[in-house]
Amino acid sequence: MEAPLIAAIETGGTKINVALARAPEEILFQERISTTMPEETLKQIRIALEKAQKIHGKAQALAIGTFGPVDLSPQSLTYGMITETPKPGWSQTDILSPLRDFFQIPSIIDTDVNAALLGEAQWGEASQLKNAAYLTVGTGIGGGLLMNGKLIHGIGHPELGHMLVTPHPEDSFAGCCPFHGNCLEGMASGLALKKRWGRNADELEIDHPAWELEAEYLAQACYNLMMIVPPTKIIIGGGVMKQQQLYPLIRERFSGLLKGYLSYPEITDHLDSFIVPPHLGEKAALMGCVVMGQRILKRF
Amino acid sequence: MEAPLIAAIETGGTKINVALARAPEEILFQERISTTMPEETLKQIRIALEKAQKIHGKAQALAIGTFGPVDLSPQSLTYGMITETPKPGWSQTDILSPLRDFFQIPSIIDTDVNAALLGEAQWGEASQLKNAAYLTVGTGIGGGLLMNGKLIHGIGHPELGHMLVTPHPEDSFAGCCPFHGNCLEGMASGLALKKRWGRNADELEIDHPAWELEAEYLAQACYNLMMIVPPTKIIIGGGVMKQQQLYPLIRERFSGLLKGYLSYPEITDHLDSFIVPPHLGEKAALMGCVVMGQRILKRF
Repeated sequence: MEAPLIAAIETGGTKINVALARAPEEILFQERISTTMPEETLKQIRIALEKAQKIHGKAQALAIGTFGPVDLSPQSLTYGMITETPKPGWSQTDILSPLRDFFQIPSIIDTDVNAALLGEAQWGEASQLKNAAYLTVGTGIGGGLLMNGKLIHGIGHPELGHMLVTPHPEDSFAGCCPFHGNCLEGMASGLALKKRWGRNADELEIDHPAWELEAEYLAQACYNLMMIVPPTKIIIGGGVMKQQQLYPLIRERFSGLLKGYLSYPEITDHLDSFIVPPHLGEKAALMGCVVMGQRILKRF
Repeated sequence: MEAPLIAAIETGGTKINVALARAPEEILFQERISTTMPEETLKQIRIALEKAQKIHGKAQALAIGTFGPVDLSPQSLTYGMITETPKPGWSQTDILSPLRDFFQIPSIIDTDVNAALLGEAQWGEASQLKNAAYLTVGTGIGGGLLMNGKLIHGIGHPELGHMLVTPHPEDSFAGCCPFHGNCLEGMASGLALKKRWGRNADELEIDHPAWELEAEYLAQACYNLMMIVPPTKIIIGGGVMKQQQLYPLIRERFSGLLKGYLSYPEITDHLDSFIVPPHLGEKAALMGCVVMGQRILKRF
């Protein structure tokens, strides 16, 4: 039997991916839209989906993986609403209801990183795993956790980007998080790289000192995840991680921070399969939306 | 119907609590034993339980909540074994098998902090909660997490005591963790307090500057838990937390670290019921062992 067709929407801070898909090998339609003001953006999503459905048939469910913070509590009156964001115009924007009401199909929302983790749990690096962490390093830094086979939703959702990091003694950058200054996101996001070095991540040479420092902070994040959760695998994706040289640097600093404390073979012998890029690459979040959509259909 | 009678054993670094109990109001027997060398200690536990069973009847299951690190993977050949510990004589000590083989009843083991959290989840501060964190601040610092209603076991178990903290600018203490120096445990454990101030925690005046600094590091731990997990409640217990003045100080610093970032009413309006002492006090871990014992009986 064919898997249900899902309208998958990944809403990022600068662009939005819209797809109609059943699985990673069955993406029937995909289109990229710029993130502008909320009303205009939601309209563009609607138009793209209508166009796709005319060609490929009607989606059975709709799932959104969004930048946050977003209210994910289904009991809440503000479920599906972006709460407080520095992004102009988007605070208190309901992004779920307008699409659900228009398309009249079962709909669900989660964070983009939770979606990416779910995609990896179904078809990628975290398949067969009960516990895993996903960190995304782009303009900002976000993350999600899979524990006992389920995504974690506590009060709100994980905000891995805002964990504390210890500034490197030779790093004089004060950090760029509007709330915390030198939290992880303030020190290691794409925006932080740009503010610290005056250039975008993809404009910095492969042997630029930026990468040693970037690896230091991301290794601290991996270390804290390891002490607090601990995941069986840490997947790190996002635009900044297109710099493949970061992975070995992060692994090396992570080992350095552990100082021999944990002696699990997963860490001591197989670190290159413990801290990894997403198997689905940039499609992870969209594919996670497909999983989310297919799962809610089982409830109906 | 009467709840099953459980042999509950809490093995700490300096003392061991042995009990026969059905619930917090039904502790039929309790005895405290000093932690000496493994063989002698296991013998004393056995003698205490035999004595208790003669009076109160046979336990139906046996459950241990132990200091760690301990192998908790039931598939592992070294399940129930203390792995690497600075405690003389205890590395590679199997503490589960000798007792299980002697008493011939269903047996289970977890960390002392996971047990304490389970006790609180059944009868205390975390009852009705799906997500909660437990931090214990004694000679060392440990912690456990309840996520989606279950204790977290990843690779190994949470090692909250070893998360990174950012040293206070005016704190020149280098930390006392034999592995990491100035991790949370290295800066804020009972041992760290003693090494920094030359006196035990319970000998320091209520207005000693030690407590502001202690609250700073524990608030950093709560903050990181909040960003990474995030729990619906953080329970902090252990010997050092008998200093009740710490709770309001930690809450105040925790708010300070958030800097207005999260606006959930649980945090903004009800912080005194978000960061709390354990309801069961020193009995939390023993009661968690009772829960563990009663749960495995359901499998038989």
